[in-house]
Amino acid sequence: MPTISQRGQHVPMSPFRKLVPFADQAKAAGKHVYHLNIGQPDIATPASALEKVRTDQSEILAYSPAVGNLSYRQKLVGYYQGFGVSLTPDELIVTTGASEAIQLALLACLDEGDEVIVPEPFYANYNGFAQIGNIKIQPITCQIETGFALPKIEAFEACINPRTKGIFITNPNNPTGCFYAEEDLRALGQLAIKHDLYLFVDEVYREFCYDGNAFFSSLLIDGAEDHVVVFDSISKRYSACGARIGTLATRNTAVLETVTRYAKLRLSPPGLGQILAEATLDMEPEYMQEVQAAYDLRRRVVYERLQAMPGVVSYLPGGAFYCFARFPVQSAEHFCKWLLESFEYKGATVMLSPGEGFYATPGLGVDEVRIAYVLNANDLNAAMDCLEQALQVYEGATHKAQALSAG
Amino acid sequence: MPTISQRGQHVPMSPFRKLVPFADQAKAAGKHVYHLNIGQPDIATPASALEKVRTDQSEILAYSPAVGNLSYRQKLVGYYQGFGVSLTPDELIVTTGASEAIQLALLACLDEGDEVIVPEPFYANYNGFAQIGNIKIQPITCQIETGFALPKIEAFEACINPRTKGIFITNPNNPTGCFYAEEDLRALGQLAIKHDLYLFVDEVYREFCYDGNAFFSSLLIDGAEDHVVVFDSISKRYSACGARIGTLATRNTAVLETVTRYAKLRLSPPGLGQILAEATLDMEPEYMQEVQAAYDLRRRVVYERLQAMPGVVSYLPGGAFYCFARFPVQSAEHFCKWLLESFEYKGATVMLSPGEGFYATPGLGVDEVRIAYVLNANDLNAAMDCLEQALQVYEGATHKAQALSAG
Repeated sequence: MPTISQRGQHVPMSPFRKLVPFADQAKAAGKHVYHLNIGQPDIATPASALEKVRTDQSEILAYSPAVGNLSYRQKLVGYYQGFGVSLTPDELIVTTGASEAIQLALLACLDEGDEVIVPEPFYANYNGFAQIGNIKIQPITCQIETGFALPKIEAFEACINPRTKGIFITNPNNPTGCFYAEEDLRALGQLAIKHDLYLFVDEVYREFCYDGNAFFSSLLIDGAEDHVVVFDSISKRYSACGARIGTLATRNTAVLETVTRYAKLRLSPPGLGQILAEATLDMEPEYMQEVQAAYDLRRRVVYERLQAMPGVVSYLPGGAFYCFARFPVQSAEHFCKWLLESFEYKGATVMLSPGEGFYATPGLGVDEVRIAYVLNANDLNAAMDCLEQALQVYEGATHKAQALSAG
Repeated sequence: MPTISQRGQHVPMSPFRKLVPFADQAKAAGKHVYHLNIGQPDIATPASALEKVRTDQSEILAYSPAVGNLSYRQKLVGYYQGFGVSLTPDELIVTTGASEAIQLALLACLDEGDEVIVPEPFYANYNGFAQIGNIKIQPITCQIETGFALPKIEAFEACINPRTKGIFITNPNNPTGCFYAEEDLRALGQLAIKHDLYLFVDEVYREFCYDGNAFFSSLLIDGAEDHVVVFDSISKRYSACGARIGTLATRNTAVLETVTRYAKLRLSPPGLGQILAEATLDMEPEYMQEVQAAYDLRRRVVYERLQAMPGVVSYLPGGAFYCFARFPVQSAEHFCKWLLESFEYKGATVMLSPGEGFYATPGLGVDEVRIAYVLNANDLNAAMDCLEQALQVYEGATHKAQALSAG
């Protein structure tokens, strides 16, 4: 029997999908599972955009251009203008989700053995994209106590070595929900210019900034035009994860040319998804305002409920729809499995993502989880009821052990 | 300015897309361009399948499972049964086009520096997929004089070395249109078993076999269950290139597991495309019979017209919707550019793919082209009129030079 490749044997597993079999068993056993493990919103995809797909009269579903339909890229120019960013259609490449944009940019910009600095915890699939290109992720650790604020610029600079080709951040951050301010981004941009590095910025949660914080796109950093490569997607902002439509945006013409060559290999991005994506750009601003208000409420529910749970450490996230929490447990992974396998409260349980898989540094995040607040406030409260109960009865809960030994 | 990676600088260009700028100029100059350069059929996508997309009532376009919707995979089981192949839904992974299936399988099965034997000329994007994984393609040359029949099995065996991990064929073949018979495939299967190799088979043109030839899937080779990995797509058979829905089919559980891990990195295949793909499986057989009859007619038109052109060498292809032709020119690439830049006949010209890019061995195919007979018979005849005229007036035509010097 022919063997699997060495790299194939070591593809990093998604921490937000590896517990799926346990969730399936829980459902088969009749439990309701509140999914806070994956960024799949319960918000409706804009009906008017879906309607565009339904009324499209094309007779042949043909290949689109490898870089995406020109009509869509032209309309995207107007979208970015709304964030103060001036781009031409040629500076945008439509991809199969942000996932593909990231993968192609890494291949285009980094050779095998090259390094990219990524603040941890980070979106775990970056590990897999890096592995495909045999690229090393150099983590720089953020702390839950500061809400995972970016380390000082000196700490970034200390990570740079001759193999470093870029810095890669997610703003607002998945999995931490941290919002990065303009001055942080400008400082990173200056560091990228100083050391001739790429600044890769995953901006798929751009619309989700709270507390009156104004989003600042890295495409606005003066002098960093050849350094900044932005990844984008309609998945989150229009609850259209299944469309698989992302974008790569940069003013670096060599990156655009190289990513285009890679894009031609796979012929074209999804055609039906592009119809939907183009239609989302006609949405009235009220749609997004309502969605933002819904997430803002959810974020407060999660924060307040977590604050009330003994031994739990968390914070009010400034963006996206995630937060991290430290639980009073030895192993968050064991706890998350136990929630699905052995626990229920009022016929339900909760699925969370163990935190360890979001760190590259071994040993970090073992008592942490990522929570995606993608459910409505009622369901979220019910999920938090479950979690509160679970932490009270879980055998491995360290705060109970401490209380017992203290008693 | 940060640099492009070495690999990024060397991404192989698609030979069927590199002349696109010249075609755009020709169109801008008012010429009609007959596109015989790319496998984009002019056949309508099944209206009933498009209708399913239009009447779908989902409110959230959510991620599908990473391996594709179960309902689609279940129906695919019945589709393969129609070719005598018994599979379970778990032996099928839905991918973003066959392109993704190929790329993930190569990563899962081959390490850097490993080799795969591919008969040339071959579908040129295999070069790019191999380059992403740093895999070496070992070409084994086929001859236009035999209609690009497979070399003898001994010739394949002579190519095997300790780094060889697989044999990769396309049946029926793109770009040659060669149909491979059951005995050829069984022989390759035995060779794969003997040397513990994978047998990768791209079967996306399965439906297009002519002259009463019955398609034989490599999934039917006894004893090769752990060796055979098949790539598939709805792009060609249902003229749905823009849907970006492909499939990987194998009984090798380790390959399935590994490809699934890679598939999870990119979250899911396109959702709207999967609705369409599932609906195509409800088509009446008459749809495919009509499509097959149309291509059979086109194939004869191209063959007969080419036979009548002085100095042109071609053959009647047994499958797919491509053929190769050798032209009486020094450089087919120069001729193809000239067709777009400097030639017109009755207000039109023809776009072809230069043959060289389909070979891995340097120097081969320089006087050859690939012709995709994806237009209706009237348009094809008009395109052949152009070609006939062009070969008569082209300065670099070697048969004219010979005739002159002989005279």
